[in-house]
This record gives sequence, C-alpha cells and structure tokens, in this order.
Amino acid sequence: MEGHQVSANEQLGPVFAFLGKRWTGLILGTLMDGPARFSELVRSVDGVSQRMLTDRLNELVEVGLVERTVLPGPPVSVEYNLTACGQAMKPALDELASWARTHLPKRKTSAV
Amino acid sequence: MEGHQVSANEQLGPVFAFLGKRWTGLILGTLMDGPARFSELVRSVDGVSQRMLTDRLNELVEVGLVERTVLPGPPVSVEYNLTACGQAMKPALDELASWARTHLPKRKTSAV
Repeated sequence: MEGHQVSANEQLGPVFAFLGKRWTGLILGTLMDGPARFSELVRSVDGVSQRMLTDRLNELVEVGLVERTVLPGPPVSVEYNLTACGQAMKPALDELASWARTHLPKRKTSAV
Repeated sequence: MEGHQVSANEQLGPVFAFLGKRWTGLILGTLMDGPARFSELVRSVDGVSQRMLTDRLNELVEVGLVERTVLPGPPVSVEYNLTACGQAMKPALDELASWARTHLPKRKTSAV
C-alpha cells in the first residue's frame, strides 16, 4: 500500500501540473472531437479569453499533447490538434464525464 | 456526433470547475488512499500552503466529494474523507495515472 501511495502522487503530480489549471481540461475535451482553429476553440470553451486560450494552448504544445499547424491561406489560419499522446487521454476524460453524468447535479441545464 | 460534442462540454465543465484548480486533483488522489487529517494532507500534497489546502478542502466539501469529521480529543483533530461521490472518481484518477505512466517522461524521479 505504501508503494501505491507514493506512485499515485508521483504520477498525478505531472498530470495536474497542467490539468489543474483553468480551461485546460475543457480545451482537451473540445479537441477530442477533432482539430479546431483558434477561433473555434474560443467559441467552444465557454468564457475563455483569447489571452488565456493562447497561454493554455502553448502549454499543451510544450508538454506534447497538442500540435499547432499553420494552414496556408489565404487567409492563413492556425489549427490545433491532439497528438497521439493527447488522444491517449480520452479514456480518462471519458471516465470523468461518466462520473459527472452520474454524480453531479445538472446545474446549468435545469432550473435548480 | 453533434449531441456528443455538446454533452462532452456540459459534463466536463462542472468537473473542471473544481478539478481545474491547483492542488484539487492531488488532494483527491491522496484521499483515495484513505481518510487523512489536515496535517497529513499538508505533508502529502507537496508544496500546498495551509491556506490553499483549507480553501480546496472547503470547496470539495461544498461540492459533496469530501466530508469533514471532527474527532473528539484530546487533542481534538479534524479528519477528511471521501464521500461515496468522491470515491466514485477513482476510476477516472486511475486512468489519468495510467496515462501519465505511459505518456509522461519521469521528470522528477530520474535526472533527465
């Protein structure tokens, strides 16, 4: 049990170094549905500012979960896509969504 | 696919409202191993201040994932434990740890 405890902290620490920041989880969740341009991400991640979105995307690129592709124009645009490493997080996000479905009250979709 | 996309955002939003804050994931990860007193959590969650830990624990109590129990003394102490709702998040945290094991470099455990 002691070994388990140590490894849980060691493994989750680097994950929540980025996932424990506002917007990151929702950006990943959105990209799970496919590549998206910056403007699409601004619309999909409700409430995020362009500045915060830029910062978070740069972090995700740096940690190797997201890749940034410049699409030749005109007009030139930038597309973000999950790497294989990022895609591999899908089962974990699915588990979180499944947990939310069962255990969290529907706050925004019903007038509670 | 459209329905899936909408529901993914709706489900993950409330999750990352608390999980997308620094320390929360590590606090939950620690409590997955069993109840802990405040002083134990301060030691387990490396780097957290007492003030931040108090704030995060209060949020987790409020959202129904953690329960706070005052243990009669002397000396009186306070113990934190996952509720059934909090325990139910274990598969998701296990998936995240599994992902980290496979996809993240071991930064702190080896001299890379």
